[in-house]
Amino acid sequence: MSFNADDFRDLDPGERVLMGPGPSDVPGRVLQAMAAPCIGHLDPAFLSIMDETQGLLRYLFQTENALTIPVSGTGSAGMETCFVNLIEPGDEVVVCVNGVFGTRMCDIVTRVGGRLIRVDAQWGETIDPDAVSHAVKGKDPKLLAVVHAETSTGVLQPLEELSRIAKEAGALFLVDMVTSLAGLDVALDRMGIDAAYSGTQKCISCPPGLSPISFSPAALEVLNNRKTPVISWYLDMSMVSNYWGGERKYHHTAPINMVYGLREALRIIAEEGLEARFARHSVNHRALVAGLEAMGLSMLVAEGERLPMLNAVRIPEGADDLKVRRALLGDFGVEIGGGLGDLAGKIWRVGLMGHSSRRKNVFLFLSALETILKGQGVKVQPGALEAASSEYQSGD
Amino acid sequence: MSFNADDFRDLDPGERVLMGPGPSDVPGRVLQAMAAPCIGHLDPAFLSIMDETQGLLRYLFQTENALTIPVSGTGSAGMETCFVNLIEPGDEVVVCVNGVFGTRMCDIVTRVGGRLIRVDAQWGETIDPDAVSHAVKGKDPKLLAVVHAETSTGVLQPLEELSRIAKEAGALFLVDMVTSLAGLDVALDRMGIDAAYSGTQKCISCPPGLSPISFSPAALEVLNNRKTPVISWYLDMSMVSNYWGGERKYHHTAPINMVYGLREALRIIAEEGLEARFARHSVNHRALVAGLEAMGLSMLVAEGERLPMLNAVRIPEGADDLKVRRALLGDFGVEIGGGLGDLAGKIWRVGLMGHSSRRKNVFLFLSALETILKGQGVKVQPGALEAASSEYQSGD
Repeated sequence: MSFNADDFRDLDPGERVLMGPGPSDVPGRVLQAMAAPCIGHLDPAFLSIMDETQGLLRYLFQTENALTIPVSGTGSAGMETCFVNLIEPGDEVVVCVNGVFGTRMCDIVTRVGGRLIRVDAQWGETIDPDAVSHAVKGKDPKLLAVVHAETSTGVLQPLEELSRIAKEAGALFLVDMVTSLAGLDVALDRMGIDAAYSGTQKCISCPPGLSPISFSPAALEVLNNRKTPVISWYLDMSMVSNYWGGERKYHHTAPINMVYGLREALRIIAEEGLEARFARHSVNHRALVAGLEAMGLSMLVAEGERLPMLNAVRIPEGADDLKVRRALLGDFGVEIGGGLGDLAGKIWRVGLMGHSSRRKNVFLFLSALETILKGQGVKVQPGALEAASSEYQSGD
Repeated sequence: MSFNADDFRDLDPGERVLMGPGPSDVPGRVLQAMAAPCIGHLDPAFLSIMDETQGLLRYLFQTENALTIPVSGTGSAGMETCFVNLIEPGDEVVVCVNGVFGTRMCDIVTRVGGRLIRVDAQWGETIDPDAVSHAVKGKDPKLLAVVHAETSTGVLQPLEELSRIAKEAGALFLVDMVTSLAGLDVALDRMGIDAAYSGTQKCISCPPGLSPISFSPAALEVLNNRKTPVISWYLDMSMVSNYWGGERKYHHTAPINMVYGLREALRIIAEEGLEARFARHSVNHRALVAGLEAMGLSMLVAEGERLPMLNAVRIPEGADDLKVRRALLGDFGVEIGGGLGDLAGKIWRVGLMGHSSRRKNVFLFLSALETILKGQGVKVQPGALEAASSEYQSGD
């Protein structure tokens, strides 16, 4: 084998301003926490860190749920965790689909043998509760699942009606909060949400690698009364929960340093406070949209249905998707996302998540985009920065 | 909710000397790499880091296998990855069991619908190839699985005979290398191993969170010719491999900073060189055993079948398992492991893995153990340090 250790240079990933669909910028405090010495997964000091992390996660999920932990995988592992633990082969499962992540849910439900009842909406629009009511009629669903913040389209899904429909149908209500948690008000207990999962790399602003999840007492009862074993050993919450909260029985080795990072990211969130954090996400979003619209660009999603942390903007006439994104990354170090599926080449996805949701990023992005578009001969209206500025007038 | 952000203090996990069954001590260079700025999972700079990490992993696994990547989960996720991708419901699977991790394999095989053919050996002893030959007779197994280094007992399993038996039976040969990789010579291609998985927190000395795996062309062919979908979306290698090596199609967000850490840990391994690293594990093991035996303690595993990185020593008459381990941790900051299952209270498991496999740790442990045992009134023979020293005479 021709192999030379000297071929591998010192790590230098560069520095970016992360304004894509995730990961978001990670605060230095979180990176430093991850560099703390690794200790054992059954060390009393680590058990305390686990307890604190769970307490902080309950604060963030606004829940008293005992089973509130970070799953040892990224957000999609959290999605899989919810389905493999809460449904059994033959169970009817309602999945709402208006983007990539609803589609992914369907894929998982099918793999684990669930009977899929699919409710679709146009990508870029919200799920219509009446369509869900209609689909549920005469059925006996075990679970109703929806994505709160569709990262592929930028749509914010209202949850109240769907929660009521799930309850009336005797189904658990499962919500994907990968992109909404820590950026939007998601109160599990108040909203009647039975299971939720998220990712660390979006509005929590910790590197990717863990998936916070929470199960309500009703979800736990379903788990405890299963007739078949959970198909995944690694994600079997009946065992994992014992390590996190019960007799501390070894299941798998927890990702120690990732948990350090998550704890620090959650501590930063608690210091800021949830209300202030949600308000910050909201004002930066409004400023970004005001700037983009002043430039003459238009948003994919209707006003009132937009996510504050993920802004889908239509690529203007005459602009070259890839050339613009390459210039943003190459000349300004700014990462944004392209469109997925049918929306590829049609939209840009601009993230303002967690630590990335800052006034300076809004201004950097607007000024960089304006410069690049003009440089590539695309017509742009003046006044973007003034329009953005005015959104901060009423308080920051 | 009564919640006060000030209740959560600055992270301080303390510092340990990790001489248990993993995690092992993590070099400062690896911790610093993990604290590098997070960038996007599709950023060109990260794609290069992924390529380098795969190259380093191939060096470590001693293989040309294209599909050689870190799975986004801990070692057990790697175990699950191999089974869910390579077997389908109804497939016959031979699993060799002589400890906790063979038992775990059986659990996973059953969950995913495999027909289990189990070959047992006493915990603390190796698997008898004749028993495997006998079990395979008249069967048509898809896979033969064995643990190379049983972390629960300290037994080293010879692989040559089992590899031959698997080939003759037309079965893929799957080897658990969670504890052996980077501490023992494991040459995938030379040894005819079709699938292997490991963990980052053992002899690689990176924090836990990733599971390096490698599939041979024969394993890939089995994967590509499946009749049923892989039961796990998250671990489906037909999609994950595309992100790591094909069209770079987004599957799930990779654990960016964990990959930074793994790359640095692998770079350190490449700088040391595999032969030197294996020799280091061997000499520190011999010194530890010489010291323990000089004190009058005895090893669980017969000479010639012992792992160099995980030393199972019988708890001597009169010693209190928990009191001794608490004193080691409390007075010396040294973590070792207790016994699992039937071996609980009967053995200690002393790890000398990766960065923890150092002469200073051997001496610290022997001197601390001698002091603690004497202090607790247990009879100990003199001469442990001299016996350990003599093992280093012929070169270090």
